[in-house]
Amino acid sequence: RSWLNVFTDFCCSFATSLSALDKEEHSAAVEDKGQTSADFSRIYSTDLLPAPGGEEMTGEFLKELVNILLAYISKSSQRSSKVLDFHHPHQLKEGLECFTLDLPDKPEPLEQLLVDCRDTLKYGVCTGHPRFLNQLSSGLDVVGLAGEWLTSAANTNMFTYEVSPVFVLMEEFLLRKMQSIVGWSDDVGDGIFCPGGTISNLYSVLLARYHFYPEVKTMGMGVLPQLALFTSEQSHYSVKKSAAVLGMGSKNVFMVKCDDSGKMIPSELESCIVAADKKGLVPFYVNATAGTTVYGAFDPLDAIADICQRHTLWMHVDAAWGGGLLMSDRHKMKLRGIERAWSVTWNPHKMMGVPLQCSVILVKKRGLLQECNDFGAEYLFQTDKIYDVSYDTGDKSFQCGRHVDVFKLWLMWKAKGSEGFGAQVNKCLENAEYLYDQLQRRTHFELVLKNKPEHSNVCFWYIPPSLRSLPPGPDRDARLHQVAPRIKGRMMEKGSVMIGYQPLGDKVNFFRCVFSNPATQQEDVDFLLEEIARLADDL
Amino acid sequence: RSWLNVFTDFCCSFATSLSALDKEEHSAAVEDKGQTSADFSRIYSTDLLPAPGGEEMTGEFLKELVNILLAYISKSSQRSSKVLDFHHPHQLKEGLECFTLDLPDKPEPLEQLLVDCRDTLKYGVCTGHPRFLNQLSSGLDVVGLAGEWLTSAANTNMFTYEVSPVFVLMEEFLLRKMQSIVGWSDDVGDGIFCPGGTISNLYSVLLARYHFYPEVKTMGMGVLPQLALFTSEQSHYSVKKSAAVLGMGSKNVFMVKCDDSGKMIPSELESCIVAADKKGLVPFYVNATAGTTVYGAFDPLDAIADICQRHTLWMHVDAAWGGGLLMSDRHKMKLRGIERAWSVTWNPHKMMGVPLQCSVILVKKRGLLQECNDFGAEYLFQTDKIYDVSYDTGDKSFQCGRHVDVFKLWLMWKAKGSEGFGAQVNKCLENAEYLYDQLQRRTHFELVLKNKPEHSNVCFWYIPPSLRSLPPGPDRDARLHQVAPRIKGRMMEKGSVMIGYQPLGDKVNFFRCVFSNPATQQEDVDFLLEEIARLADDL
Repeated sequence: RSWLNVFTDFCCSFATSLSALDKEEHSAAVEDKGQTSADFSRIYSTDLLPAPGGEEMTGEFLKELVNILLAYISKSSQRSSKVLDFHHPHQLKEGLECFTLDLPDKPEPLEQLLVDCRDTLKYGVCTGHPRFLNQLSSGLDVVGLAGEWLTSAANTNMFTYEVSPVFVLMEEFLLRKMQSIVGWSDDVGDGIFCPGGTISNLYSVLLARYHFYPEVKTMGMGVLPQLALFTSEQSHYSVKKSAAVLGMGSKNVFMVKCDDSGKMIPSELESCIVAADKKGLVPFYVNATAGTTVYGAFDPLDAIADICQRHTLWMHVDAAWGGGLLMSDRHKMKLRGIERAWSVTWNPHKMMGVPLQCSVILVKKRGLLQECNDFGAEYLFQTDKIYDVSYDTGDKSFQCGRHVDVFKLWLMWKAKGSEGFGAQVNKCLENAEYLYDQLQRRTHFELVLKNKPEHSNVCFWYIPPSLRSLPPGPDRDARLHQVAPRIKGRMMEKGSVMIGYQPLGDKVNFFRCVFSNPATQQEDVDFLLEEIARLADDL
Repeated sequence: RSWLNVFTDFCCSFATSLSALDKEEHSAAVEDKGQTSADFSRIYSTDLLPAPGGEEMTGEFLKELVNILLAYISKSSQRSSKVLDFHHPHQLKEGLECFTLDLPDKPEPLEQLLVDCRDTLKYGVCTGHPRFLNQLSSGLDVVGLAGEWLTSAANTNMFTYEVSPVFVLMEEFLLRKMQSIVGWSDDVGDGIFCPGGTISNLYSVLLARYHFYPEVKTMGMGVLPQLALFTSEQSHYSVKKSAAVLGMGSKNVFMVKCDDSGKMIPSELESCIVAADKKGLVPFYVNATAGTTVYGAFDPLDAIADICQRHTLWMHVDAAWGGGLLMSDRHKMKLRGIERAWSVTWNPHKMMGVPLQCSVILVKKRGLLQECNDFGAEYLFQTDKIYDVSYDTGDKSFQCGRHVDVFKLWLMWKAKGSEGFGAQVNKCLENAEYLYDQLQRRTHFELVLKNKPEHSNVCFWYIPPSLRSLPPGPDRDARLHQVAPRIKGRMMEKGSVMIGYQPLGDKVNFFRCVFSNPATQQEDVDFLLEEIARLADDL
């Protein structure tokens, strides 16, 4: 061991002592209010439940953890605090201020675990911060969080009613509710909660294949013709990914051209279908997107449904991002035609702000999920149980164990009511309109799309001083391409705000701002634009 | 509205008032200790963060929820409390004592949400109860729970280092650690956390196919020969499920015969490979199981590895259930040969007691996961970021968004140390040995397998009074087949204990007791056997 190790250890011990001092002060303060707080430096996990007499210490430990989490949540909601405290991978791996990933052979005391919890949050990203605008999933819903905490205390599995009676019924109830919002009648409809929108989309392709070729389940793709899938060039990459996983091949996914606003062009879809047919492929599946990832565009669902009907193709709508708009009376008409879909992906963890993960695949044809996926494992799906075993819904899934993702959504729905979700969606779209207006008013910003956004995505370039006098052309494009990544890098290093960027088609890197975070206000939009200008003033 | 509805509403209001009274008493008690407690009957979720000034109410609400959860956890750990309070699906759906699944259009106050949380737990199953022996995942680890609570407060996504710096590094660290425990050298090994063992096994088949036929990703199965997979007749159904999903066909999965203890017979594997070859199929993948679902049997990994090597087949080890034994010096030799596998499934949420879900697929060939699954989505996996983008590991996955399942495992490892996990595993296997001994000593119980269990599964029949004088034969078998389901039904109705049962091959329904719950003690084993005898005394 080098002297450096010894020195580092000394620093760590010193820091731990300081932390303990902090702790003591905190304890003293707490005691003033009549509470007690344990000294966790000599308490180990073996002192917690199920150890005999472990109730009290379990309560103390979890309450101390909750204090840490509450402090984090409060801080994350303050505009004056950073969105993130950026460090490079090698810095975090080498250990920063005694935070190390190393795992011991011997137990460590609860005090150390609490320090680790604080550090984990400290070096993470505050996705609930009003200025975290980086992903389609953002914000932190406190009721949703409560739902997750209960879910993890219940620690059970969705496969059978036997071990998840309440959650299985909640899933059935919410699926029916969502199907009715999509516009399906009571006599059709099925579905399942699954781990993310990509898996939901994968289900849609799997079900479409089984619907047309049920023999695939036992015989495999060898007895099928070469299948062709269709999706827009601006759709999510999960359609290609699913085709690859399911053994259809990504090159058999036809990428249908979009118009300038990012919507699939129906006549192009028709042409692609004809072209695939001419190549000897068998078209069977069309994915239409309700809310594309970058532009937030809505494909023309009715026109696409007409084409699918004419050619007898499975019509899937990927509304992972746009589905939330169905909750808003003001915006739901943007998904007109979705009721004609054979399956729908809808992620409440995106626009509806449910904690990660919460994604749903809805399927119009009842019973298909079960037929497609069931293998009737006798150790799990016994048919001689005392209750109605049609509630053992686990064999609908191609998972076996499945996390309970439904409770947090159910609890949030209770808390907000359908109307509350509508108001939340409206608010996010108002923020997007405000940003759109500001981009038109302010100098040196350029909108990628001229029209008012349909969803909450707003895409734009910032033109820094050195580019302002350049004529349009390849040179300016090449330099503009580097601007967004550089500004983004500075944002991260400063920790002031987070927003995404990417190129798309022939367009060089541009910013994509998305609003799904209920904490975000107009002042944050103003801050974003001013901050971009500040960070780029020497570019 | 009928008078019945009116009466029900009245009862509900009355019950809510009682609950409010309870609440007041509780508040008064709490105030005596110097705390304050809010009146949640007029507080709504819109009063919580991110609402301005919502910090205090957010804290009050979450603390009240934690009180409910702590009461549940304490109760679940008491042997005197029920494992479950059974109701049929229609009873729960019709609403029991004012608990209804209905979702409103208008918001409901936080008071109602807290009542709903209590009810959800009340009508659920206490999987942490010392007498919950029903699934391979059981128990409630308090530190793991703390890890989940932090994970949901952090509410982020595993796809990029950008939004999950700490969790991405923890995943890398834990995967390396688990690879080293499996016995792989430092210069090989890759992996990913995924939503459950079935998805992990699906990855193994997907990777094997890609390894031998990389063209499948773009071209699909059409350009491949008819593939054959091999797994034992007692292996998990996920191998068949995966073959169906991936387009290989479940009938191309050869179910290799097992010996009396449930282990795959290597010579039978060899015969199946030859038979498949003769049928014109191309063998490519063998799944060996380390810890089968029902018997807990360990396939002879070294002998299977020899065969795989001779035929150049991908060797996968499904150690979803048995992987935990690698943490025990006393038991790890049961997985001898696992280091020769090309991929390994290991579910820390089973034998290691990590809260659901926590499953890992380990892959020996570095880079294969990425090559097999990546599509390089530019909106997410930009290559011009400021940090080393090899840490953006999301494109290794066939999911896009991915839940953070690593933190709870990391935190538990800190809390227990490797040795603590070993001790926990040893304890579960001691319980199994104790049950095995008891079954031999007590009358009217029959062991399904004569030998001492290798894992913590113990399988047995109970012979009730009316069957004791019957001679062996079809009539006795038919009647014995009905015994376990009937006892299980009574257990559930009484709520005293939970244990699984199933038939297997030519064996009629028998009980399978599994120990993965650290709360379970020998007294619970005694109780189980006595309770079975009590419940079956009139059968």
